[in-house]
Amino acid sequence: MITQSLAQFVAQTQSAPDATRHMVRLSLLDWAAVGLAGCREPVARITRAMALDEAGAAQAHLFGGGRAPARAAALVNGATSHALDYDDTHFAHIGHPSVAVIPAALAVAEREGAGGAELQLAALLGIETSIRVGIWLGRDHYQTGFHQTGTAGAFGAAAAAARLMGLDAAGIAAALGLVATRASGLKSQFGTMGKPYNAGIAAANGVEAATLVARGFVPDPQGLEAAQGFGATHAGQADPAALNGVGRNWLFDGISHKFHACCHGLHATLEALAGMNRPAAEEVAEIRIATHPRWMSVCNQSDPETGLGAKFSYRMVAAMALLGHDTAALESYSDALCADPQLRALRARVAVAQDGELSETQARVRIVQKDGTLHEAFHDLDAPMAPERREARLKSKAAALVGQARSEALWDMVVAEAAPDELGAALT
Amino acid sequence: MITQSLAQFVAQTQSAPDATRHMVRLSLLDWAAVGLAGCREPVARITRAMALDEAGAAQAHLFGGGRAPARAAALVNGATSHALDYDDTHFAHIGHPSVAVIPAALAVAEREGAGGAELQLAALLGIETSIRVGIWLGRDHYQTGFHQTGTAGAFGAAAAAARLMGLDAAGIAAALGLVATRASGLKSQFGTMGKPYNAGIAAANGVEAATLVARGFVPDPQGLEAAQGFGATHAGQADPAALNGVGRNWLFDGISHKFHACCHGLHATLEALAGMNRPAAEEVAEIRIATHPRWMSVCNQSDPETGLGAKFSYRMVAAMALLGHDTAALESYSDALCADPQLRALRARVAVAQDGELSETQARVRIVQKDGTLHEAFHDLDAPMAPERREARLKSKAAALVGQARSEALWDMVVAEAAPDELGAALT
Repeated sequence: MITQSLAQFVAQTQSAPDATRHMVRLSLLDWAAVGLAGCREPVARITRAMALDEAGAAQAHLFGGGRAPARAAALVNGATSHALDYDDTHFAHIGHPSVAVIPAALAVAEREGAGGAELQLAALLGIETSIRVGIWLGRDHYQTGFHQTGTAGAFGAAAAAARLMGLDAAGIAAALGLVATRASGLKSQFGTMGKPYNAGIAAANGVEAATLVARGFVPDPQGLEAAQGFGATHAGQADPAALNGVGRNWLFDGISHKFHACCHGLHATLEALAGMNRPAAEEVAEIRIATHPRWMSVCNQSDPETGLGAKFSYRMVAAMALLGHDTAALESYSDALCADPQLRALRARVAVAQDGELSETQARVRIVQKDGTLHEAFHDLDAPMAPERREARLKSKAAALVGQARSEALWDMVVAEAAPDELGAALT
Repeated sequence: MITQSLAQFVAQTQSAPDATRHMVRLSLLDWAAVGLAGCREPVARITRAMALDEAGAAQAHLFGGGRAPARAAALVNGATSHALDYDDTHFAHIGHPSVAVIPAALAVAEREGAGGAELQLAALLGIETSIRVGIWLGRDHYQTGFHQTGTAGAFGAAAAAARLMGLDAAGIAAALGLVATRASGLKSQFGTMGKPYNAGIAAANGVEAATLVARGFVPDPQGLEAAQGFGATHAGQADPAALNGVGRNWLFDGISHKFHACCHGLHATLEALAGMNRPAAEEVAEIRIATHPRWMSVCNQSDPETGLGAKFSYRMVAAMALLGHDTAALESYSDALCADPQLRALRARVAVAQDGELSETQARVRIVQKDGTLHEAFHDLDAPMAPERREARLKSKAAALVGQARSEALWDMVVAEAAPDELGAALT
């Protein structure tokens, strides 16, 4: 049922609202920038070296240079663009849709010679598919230990690839059915290169499934919802709300971009801090952060000693924000800053507590001054952001990651709906 | 715990008993023959066409001709060798270990320039690993819907590949840990090309994991047994018996080769029939078959109309055996035979019942003659078979599949421990 509905949606949709299309372009810019910034990370270098050693048909570009068959490019570019964990998130299912879907869409678009507008629409349809499959799988799936970026992401990648290959609804359903036997990704790899790898395998699995179906592979198209299908075997909840309004509204519109180079669980706190009247650090008696209980085991390292640890620490990023360290800059998260006496002194005055009344996208911050003055702020990442403000912030982020000129050139290409192989060449 | 134990076993084992090594060679011959016979099947043609389109470094041979990078060769050769479902089975975990592990081992051995003896030992170590991981995952894992060939098989493929790449115990553990986030395969694809595909993805996942680890990829090596690791998320039972006698005895020795070109659930019945004093068909009043309850939903099609259906029908194969149709020959299972009046008349006199006292490898057959005479036979596939008899039967099967000369040439190569690229070239 869900497979057939999503396959028809992916096959038949010919357009999307302007605001949604604008968001797609922003996500494309953001994806390209974080991928370029990530291409010297170990997981990026290692997967790319494997692909270059395998060589083969130059079907699609790789972040960092070189070309490879589309399946391999999807693997490399998925892992590379998630290497910094600085890409977008959709909280409805808690997944990173762009890093799973866009690498598959771009690689297949390059291979098939699709147009730029086709690529952008297919990426949107794939991301929308991954979000809806993720909702259908539900929180139980995530809590059991599955990484929605890898699992739901594979279905989105398959949908985008199948659309770009011109498959009809039955063919798209078959690609979704086939990828069900290959979709995977465990959260227990978090904190290792295995996390970004999960994005790469989602993208590669999607390309492979669509490619095989286009060549005549006949799977069970009900791979997702069959008895003992992917849902039943992977703690899926089969939430029928996943199909609400499909084809009429776009859950993609609720995507959350990262404006801080740390765990997304910290962002509502950082946005609350950014929006409030903050006293000088030396006047602060206490900073009290309230967050959703889920995040307490994810990003509440108390006294991190490393830059990586700092990315998962409420106390650290709150102190950084108050002391004026740029939480959007990758280089701010350093071992040296963790050892800085001024920062450690302020960090010691931060208290973190869970609040079951808050949603996963909300945080509340209270700052108590030494003179007793109380400052308070609340932020919800799901609150609407004016498109102009989002664009400005994402352009600023991209410029910080890849330089002003390169950021502008990427944006110009995206707006002009540049041919996929031109866009791909710009990532090398 | 299991990962570390198996990694040390795979890293440190330098030899195996002669009888076990003889069985490895028989499985290699059998694997090569069923793969060659399967290379015109749709799933074989489709996966191979994808690999040839991708092209790339000629690291390893493909069934049916051509070479490809090792990851792609593992995918193609795994799917191809399982296409006919005529390969070996291990009933301790209910998986097809050779089709998942040997394609990975051979592809990596070709790529790395390993020797023939190294290939055979690595294949054995990988198969033993897959059986033990499969037992550790347990019947719950299988009954939930996971295809052990794809899941446990990926760990075996990773072990074999890592061994051939010279990784030490820590490296082999890392490959096992990494493949945990990618291992997959659903039984709900049974009856479609998705079933043999699951063998291919196991092999490809194993090659990929070991290759990435050798290049510096650092995953969580506890991917199998970690909290929310592969076992916990995939209905694994964590059966500690999986490690009983590891390094001292070889569970591989219990492997079951197929001597009939149909579902393995039918084989104990066919062996029982073969070993009994059988009346002429026209004298048969009734044939009563008793089998393990699990098989009733797997291979008990009552009145199949197609050759494929016949491969999953007790009544059909019993009638075939009594009428002298060769149940070892692929071409015996035809739509035409399903429509044959003589066969249908005898088939109508076969009754199938479940018997919870029988194991999955056992069957009991009773033939009642029209004059009241009763013939009875019992067979257990786990009963020891003399090595000479097994060798003779497997050589006969291979000759039927690929011809006498080719079968003999393959056996000579295996016995001579021919270099992996020579063996690979013989598959094309």
